[in-house]
Amino acid sequence: MAQLFDRIALIGIGLIGSSIARDVKQLGLAREVVVSTRSPETLKRAEELELGTSYKLSAADAVEGADLVIVSVPVGASEAVAKQIAPHLKPGAIVTDVGSTKASVIAQMAPHMPKTVHFIPGHPLAGTEKSGPDAGFAGLFHGRWCIFTPLPGTDADALAKLKAFWEALGSKIDEMDPEHHDKVLAIVSHLPHIIAYNIVGTADDLETVTQSEVIKYSASGFRDFTRLAASDPTMWRDVCLHNKDAILEMLARFSEDLAYLQRAIRWGEGDKLFELFTRTRDVRRSIIEAGQDVDVPDFGRHSLDKKV
Amino acid sequence: MAQLFDRIALIGIGLIGSSIARDVKQLGLAREVVVSTRSPETLKRAEELELGTSYKLSAADAVEGADLVIVSVPVGASEAVAKQIAPHLKPGAIVTDVGSTKASVIAQMAPHMPKTVHFIPGHPLAGTEKSGPDAGFAGLFHGRWCIFTPLPGTDADALAKLKAFWEALGSKIDEMDPEHHDKVLAIVSHLPHIIAYNIVGTADDLETVTQSEVIKYSASGFRDFTRLAASDPTMWRDVCLHNKDAILEMLARFSEDLAYLQRAIRWGEGDKLFELFTRTRDVRRSIIEAGQDVDVPDFGRHSLDKKV
Repeated sequence: MAQLFDRIALIGIGLIGSSIARDVKQLGLAREVVVSTRSPETLKRAEELELGTSYKLSAADAVEGADLVIVSVPVGASEAVAKQIAPHLKPGAIVTDVGSTKASVIAQMAPHMPKTVHFIPGHPLAGTEKSGPDAGFAGLFHGRWCIFTPLPGTDADALAKLKAFWEALGSKIDEMDPEHHDKVLAIVSHLPHIIAYNIVGTADDLETVTQSEVIKYSASGFRDFTRLAASDPTMWRDVCLHNKDAILEMLARFSEDLAYLQRAIRWGEGDKLFELFTRTRDVRRSIIEAGQDVDVPDFGRHSLDKKV
Repeated sequence: MAQLFDRIALIGIGLIGSSIARDVKQLGLAREVVVSTRSPETLKRAEELELGTSYKLSAADAVEGADLVIVSVPVGASEAVAKQIAPHLKPGAIVTDVGSTKASVIAQMAPHMPKTVHFIPGHPLAGTEKSGPDAGFAGLFHGRWCIFTPLPGTDADALAKLKAFWEALGSKIDEMDPEHHDKVLAIVSHLPHIIAYNIVGTADDLETVTQSEVIKYSASGFRDFTRLAASDPTMWRDVCLHNKDAILEMLARFSEDLAYLQRAIRWGEGDKLFELFTRTRDVRRSIIEAGQDVDVPDFGRHSLDKKV
């Protein structure tokens, strides 16, 4: 594939940053890739994995001369990074991010960006429950959506160039305003993670059922939730704090619906339960038809299952 | 493998019943397998799949002369089945079930069972989100737990024989009292399903985010829940109605914990969120160490994913 940028700076080299690095290397999308993280251990590991062409502890150093800067840090660190890199950005550079919340990232970064650079907020909807530079892999973004929430007046050429980069990684591109992005992600991603964290916490705290029983019998449904609940704590703390309004709105809806369901269980209203349980089956069918999940029972886990 | 029973009657031939039938056939565990379901279409399908040696619409006819009777019906149908089969059971026969709730099944079936038979309630912890005779497969129970909740005074030989049968199917055996079973299953299975059904319903009802957006972006977490929420509506309606007390207890705990989490989000208490999100990661680790889930990111779905 053709080289799209001369020098790319990756600020943050966790699951997302290191997956970008692997793709860029494999596809030859840049001549140089400067990797930066404030953790010396992580930087050392990135170097061992040969994720870039040079390695910097300072984000300010890393962005010098870069044509594309990709910030892949927990969303709560966005403002600090913006302040550090702002004075060192090359005029004409594209600065983007991968954060799961967009209104907050824009509020944190946009005020610090010099007028000479193109700041284009983005969010690739990809990942696994693993974190760190070892968790990344080439192809993570393939077939996944990447949503841009460009600010008014964004340069069309810069946006096109950034889109071409993500398309080269195999992503499908979408665009929406930041507030709508935050509502959509609140329901499709943030609420599922919060609910998963919560139920795993509840099970862990019970007195009547032991922790070892929960683990032993977890294949009956519970284990599905533990995957999301194993996601990076720092990242998810920040998401909760930085998409507060949309998350609280979705939580309120969820709790209201759960109270209705609870009441139906208490009063033995089987028809209400049956109606909901039938309707939700259709949602699964639509997701499979849309190619958004695998069409095999139990996520295809059965064949991988060691079944000890 | 040696033949363990002369004639087995399977009452109900859905995912569980038909998986038992396939194993029994493959392993040669019985000379005859009588398949019974009250739905003519399902019975026809069972015959096409050659799941048994004879096929009966009447459960009463099916149990005639059977040494082992396995009732695999939605738990709410247990009493009706017990009444139908009771007068036709062969003296000395073992009667068992596979229901996800045990106190209720015992209350429904035990009073009708003649003193001449061995009624031993059981619950194989296995299944997928699919249902019906086509969804079953040989090996479903392999490496999975089968929990017995025998009544006081249960004949030791009969219990040993039934255990040997499930062991032949590859199950690991456990025993507990019915009330404890119902509490354990409420947290490891029933609550996860109810929560999954609920969140999928909430997402389906939103006005600010369209249904097509929910489906399109579901890979960000939401899709994990849709698997459980695609489970059989009749089975799960019955579970909710027949394990009411334990489920309401677990739901109350879950909601209390969720209110705590919600409050932490509202007031920006990042430390409380971080503490929970770290603790839940350990639970996942324990489940993988116990061999109760696959040790690959995203349930190994990545490699199966068509990534359209």
